[in-house]
Amino acid sequence: MTDRIAVIPGDGIGREVVPATQRVLEAVEPEFSFVEAAAGDAVKEETGTALPAETRELVADADATLFGAAGETAADVILPLRQIVGSFVNVRPARAYPGTDALRPETDLVFLRENTEGVYTGHESRLTDDVATLTRVVTEFASERLAEFACEYVEERDEDGFTIAHKANVMRETDGLFRDTVDRVADVRGVPHDEALMDALATHLCLHPEEYGVVVCPNLAGDVLSDLAAGLVGGLGLLPSANIGPENALFEPVHGTAPDIAGEGVANPCATMFSAAMLLEYLDYDEEGKAVRSAVESVLEDGPRTPDLGGSAGTDAVTDAVLGQLS
Amino acid sequence: MTDRIAVIPGDGIGREVVPATQRVLEAVEPEFSFVEAAAGDAVKEETGTALPAETRELVADADATLFGAAGETAADVILPLRQIVGSFVNVRPARAYPGTDALRPETDLVFLRENTEGVYTGHESRLTDDVATLTRVVTEFASERLAEFACEYVEERDEDGFTIAHKANVMRETDGLFRDTVDRVADVRGVPHDEALMDALATHLCLHPEEYGVVVCPNLAGDVLSDLAAGLVGGLGLLPSANIGPENALFEPVHGTAPDIAGEGVANPCATMFSAAMLLEYLDYDEEGKAVRSAVESVLEDGPRTPDLGGSAGTDAVTDAVLGQLS
Ligand SMILES: CC(C)[C@H](C(=O)O)[C@@H](O)C(=O)O
Ligand SMILES: CC(C)[C@H](C(=O)O)[C@@H](O)C(=O)O
Repeated sequence: MTDRIAVIPGDGIGREVVPATQRVLEAVEPEFSFVEAAAGDAVKEETGTALPAETRELVADADATLFGAAGETAADVILPLRQIVGSFVNVRPARAYPGTDALRPETDLVFLRENTEGVYTGHESRLTDDVATLTRVVTEFASERLAEFACEYVEERDEDGFTIAHKANVMRETDGLFRDTVDRVADVRGVPHDEALMDALATHLCLHPEEYGVVVCPNLAGDVLSDLAAGLVGGLGLLPSANIGPENALFEPVHGTAPDIAGEGVANPCATMFSAAMLLEYLDYDEEGKAVRSAVESVLEDGPRTPDLGGSAGTDAVTDAVLGQLS
Repeated sequence: MTDRIAVIPGDGIGREVVPATQRVLEAVEPEFSFVEAAAGDAVKEETGTALPAETRELVADADATLFGAAGETAADVILPLRQIVGSFVNVRPARAYPGTDALRPETDLVFLRENTEGVYTGHESRLTDDVATLTRVVTEFASERLAEFACEYVEERDEDGFTIAHKANVMRETDGLFRDTVDRVADVRGVPHDEALMDALATHLCLHPEEYGVVVCPNLAGDVLSDLAAGLVGGLGLLPSANIGPENALFEPVHGTAPDIAGEGVANPCATMFSAAMLLEYLDYDEEGKAVRSAVESVLEDGPRTPDLGGSAGTDAVTDAVLGQLS
């Protein structure tokens, strides 16, 4: 059966990197059927909503979604999209590619971020003019599901194990439940693991990123620590991510809409192409996924480069080079 | 009137760096009266409590406290101590000193961390076996007090302004209240300011620390971002901090007990001495504070060094060198 892929360019450079990446997906699997949908600032301007019902339906019905970026409305787009695909884990690799200007070239990390709860459940109240509260939720169910995923991830990739990030010395019940649950699942499955306080980990990742591999995190900790790791590899420009659910998934570059360069045809499509490689693997096109990743890596190493990487090539030239590697 | 200073060495290298720093305080102001108090793992082992009532009283009655570090019981010691001194702001400078091995030598940041609320208020529940919650609290009162402090801090030091860190795109009510309140106070006082999402800031601090100066943060954001900055300047080893309340304050190095080197006489006392410089300034010994800071800086630049900085000097030799600079 043909896989149906929803593509949502969104705003800014999303409109350049998503079509470029779609060309790559078409090249490796001519049978994919693509459906395009709108989300973000522009469609909100037009219709009053950043995530139209039609887009929600297309994403829900697709086998996987490729999303670019949204501007001001980012949270109103990406948080519901993650819910629609039922994503319980956000997979965020942060790797320094050879030939790019990384602060810590030895960085090769993957953050497995809990993607449904923590401070993201949306339970906030303005109790009085003076007092606002937010209820942070941690469940054993979500922690267990994340831990199972992490164990499989480590086993399939022959990783050494994982580090559990948390702040259970302060958030004793909530991060305590998270830490203990992930710990228990890993013990049962015999997956090696250690743990680190998220603040101490922020220091250590800067000082010795090579000592870490897979990091399993609560939602906000994963948000901040993976962005820190982006800083270590030279910025958000090359980082892909996957929002994985039980039966659906959404893939997106970690970068934003880059309004300063949008529309000029010089956006770097590599992060979106790496996201597409994750999409291919999710749909069990393992070889194709690997091929796309290698093609992009080899272009990064000695092909044309966009200005963010010190080159002067445009999005199309980089895309052509990636397609050239694939043919 | 003689100022009364409580000293709490705590555990591990706290017992080396605090006495060393006390020598420096005695040298610049022979009139100080010191009272020593116990806290941490060792006193818990002995008495069953990590923070004995006597220590609480001494700290409450002192004009200022110098604290070293506590081991496993760190949270049980430092969180109540911050409450006892009524500390509403945690001042955390993170600066790369010349002659030390920093990842980003251009780093010169100060975090002003809210020190009473956020996820630190301790309202947690285990609702069922499966569900734990934490209530994060943000008040206009605390945000305003922090903002007033930040404005004065910037004005007194002729800083360019400050950056407000937050995650108001997700924590709309709570961090929204924080952001809007700090913003409003700064507007009224005419202090230049901008804002940044804490995740994006984690990336930017790695890439361009020189673009930031004073960063005003909610409690946990300040914890994590200041530890990130510690990574940029080469570790926690040299970072001081101040917990300031309306009528009392507590000063501590950001590092921990360093059990691996405790007792060997090679602990680096510089972070505690920088903390003592902040203590002196807090007690209006501005000149003495400045003198201590310069003395430590000049020893760091070309005096004896402890092993963590690549030297082979002990704590005493470094302390003697600092005292030499002061005399
Ligand atoms: C836009 C925002 C809501 C989102 C998040 O906090 O998850 C973003 O920072 C990310 O990490 O994808
Ligand atoms: C020990 C811990 C409770 C503490 C905190 O989270 O504030 C520490 O990390 C710090 O920053 O002083």
